[in-house]
Amino acid sequence: MSALDEALRQLRARPWRPVVLAEPVPVDALPTPALLLDEEAFDRNLARMTAYLGARGKGMRPHAKTHKCPAIAHRQLAQGAVGICAAKVSEAAALVNAGVDRVLITSPIVDAPRAGLVAALARDCVARAPDSAALDIVVDSATGLDLLKAAARSGDRLGILIDIDVAMGRTGTRDLDTILELAESAATAPGLEFRGIQHYAGQVMHLEGRDLRRERSLGLWARVAAIADSLAERGFAPALVTGGGTGTYDIDCEVAGLTDLQVGSFIFMDQQYRIIGGARGALFDDFEVALQVVTTAISQPRDGLITVDGGYKAFASDAGSPWPFDRQGFEYRFAGDEHGVLVRKGDAALPALGERVRFIAPHCDPTVNLYDWYWVCRAGEVRELWPIAARGCSW
Amino acid sequence: MSALDEALRQLRARPWRPVVLAEPVPVDALPTPALLLDEEAFDRNLARMTAYLGARGKGMRPHAKTHKCPAIAHRQLAQGAVGICAAKVSEAAALVNAGVDRVLITSPIVDAPRAGLVAALARDCVARAPDSAALDIVVDSATGLDLLKAAARSGDRLGILIDIDVAMGRTGTRDLDTILELAESAATAPGLEFRGIQHYAGQVMHLEGRDLRRERSLGLWARVAAIADSLAERGFAPALVTGGGTGTYDIDCEVAGLTDLQVGSFIFMDQQYRIIGGARGALFDDFEVALQVVTTAISQPRDGLITVDGGYKAFASDAGSPWPFDRQGFEYRFAGDEHGVLVRKGDAALPALGERVRFIAPHCDPTVNLYDWYWVCRAGEVRELWPIAARGCSW
Repeated sequence: MSALDEALRQLRARPWRPVVLAEPVPVDALPTPALLLDEEAFDRNLARMTAYLGARGKGMRPHAKTHKCPAIAHRQLAQGAVGICAAKVSEAAALVNAGVDRVLITSPIVDAPRAGLVAALARDCVARAPDSAALDIVVDSATGLDLLKAAARSGDRLGILIDIDVAMGRTGTRDLDTILELAESAATAPGLEFRGIQHYAGQVMHLEGRDLRRERSLGLWARVAAIADSLAERGFAPALVTGGGTGTYDIDCEVAGLTDLQVGSFIFMDQQYRIIGGARGALFDDFEVALQVVTTAISQPRDGLITVDGGYKAFASDAGSPWPFDRQGFEYRFAGDEHGVLVRKGDAALPALGERVRFIAPHCDPTVNLYDWYWVCRAGEVRELWPIAARGCSW
Repeated sequence: MSALDEALRQLRARPWRPVVLAEPVPVDALPTPALLLDEEAFDRNLARMTAYLGARGKGMRPHAKTHKCPAIAHRQLAQGAVGICAAKVSEAAALVNAGVDRVLITSPIVDAPRAGLVAALARDCVARAPDSAALDIVVDSATGLDLLKAAARSGDRLGILIDIDVAMGRTGTRDLDTILELAESAATAPGLEFRGIQHYAGQVMHLEGRDLRRERSLGLWARVAAIADSLAERGFAPALVTGGGTGTYDIDCEVAGLTDLQVGSFIFMDQQYRIIGGARGALFDDFEVALQVVTTAISQPRDGLITVDGGYKAFASDAGSPWPFDRQGFEYRFAGDEHGVLVRKGDAALPALGERVRFIAPHCDPTVNLYDWYWVCRAGEVRELWPIAARGCSW
């Protein structure tokens, strides 16, 4: 058994189905820090995005790197999502294991064991749902594509998209010769199907102000459109042109050639997205805050501050500090791995010992990745637990 | 079933025993990002700390918040550790579930369900090993202590330590009247046993230069000693005076009244600790780097940089960037949740596509918390997988 096989064995042993609690419990009865999903706000966010994209003829291909939760992926597909994105092969494996069979892996791989796993996942999906399943992966180098070609068998239907980078400098390629060669190579390889191109501009998502995001994003998409035209001229017209995200969902819909959007964070929202509204504190509030981290005030070492039981292990710290959800008058400061200190601002009363204090995550994706399940709240009470079955699946 | 019961049910279903691989595999065959434990370096670190503290008559009470791994806790106890620290009640529950029965919970709690769980864990431990078990928890308020008193039954032996804060302002109390009242209250309550005091000075651990750390740490311990004297005068002499950490292990041993040290990171080491050696780049290298994160170079969007498959979900980002482990000539920059970009410095060659690149974690504790298992390497090959069974146990 290879290391990858053992890792998969560990992964497949994890529960992924929602657990209905015997009785609903109040939010204040949760052991904290607790990741709380407001199911009603989540459903409204999903319905809103579905309607917006649907009205403009665009597909929704939500990213599971945000939620890492097969139960949420199933709900997104039930609402009409054209497929689910997975950042890594293991994330895709967790989804496929839970019965999700329309998955696009959005990051390239360049080693043989994972190429073999991708081909096996594609086979599993297609065997399960011959007419509707699709397991696709992006490539940006001949190295990666050659490994996938070697792993696929004649008759497989492993979908290949080319990852296009026109400005970001993370993954993808902007070299037209490489792009054309990859397309031809994928289109002619047994077991592979050339599906199209992906373009993701992470650096644009969090620019403040819609006008600035619009200018930058449409400028990049114009360059991607030129690449798509070149592919079409050579006979490799991309059936899929996929990309975009929550920060440009209402901008990228203007791009004629774009087929579907890889939106992720809109289901939850976080402080990093809320503040992109623009100048003078305008909030980006097209979507509701559906995700909260609930903490408890556990210690008061001195007047004017109080300590809560969530620190770096409760909130990812790459995008600033947690933001108060439903009360004002203090600011949160990280105080190590396990704690945060609330410092009073002005005259407001601080929470008392034992009181729950809720926060908006600074950045939802890596914060979700710290937890093993969502406590799912409906009508003010927690009724279900949804396992975050792809938690830790960064490999 | 309460929310806490359901959370415990999820926790107890997790595997915690080491898995021996059918055949050893090379490090380069791991799916990445991979958390790699060099078992030989780990053992040397553990032996070195054990010998150092033992020679000075101090106990070792290693902190599980660093490793979150019952297999490691068992190994620490087998080497003579006087007990294991847990940051949170759930971390303690994961340890007790795996047969660890000498646990000190180092953070106070102030709610009834968790007080009930602490009392239940104490009962479990004592029932399992009446002569040697101990389940202790710190308190810093009457609110918390009263909940524990209500949860304990006559005949229980739940150990209580008072969390002393003389300077840090996170958890603990510095008010002598409060301290004396808590001690008396704990000492006289049915089912509770007053064990002593804890003092942790996180802000001192990472000061650069041993002289500075020594001056600060001994100054704080002098204030703690005065509190211990006051307790003794009232008839509540602390049997345990516990605290300290990796950054002051060789300093705090000078403190006469200190009984045991809560060292954590020394087993792994991280860049945040390595740089505290002092001026002119001197490294704190009393302990070896036994923990690495292995990534793969997966994309080269342009000359002079290459992208690896580990970002914010592979490295906690509260303490700077990952540090190259075994090769030089580049620097790592975070590039989102799933990727990092290596930027060439000078003329050195960058890793090639598909090559593995190893890093020292900026901060080991929250980085470990991102993974579900260690790949354990001995004699250059990976032979075992050790589950990080308390991962995510921040509640």
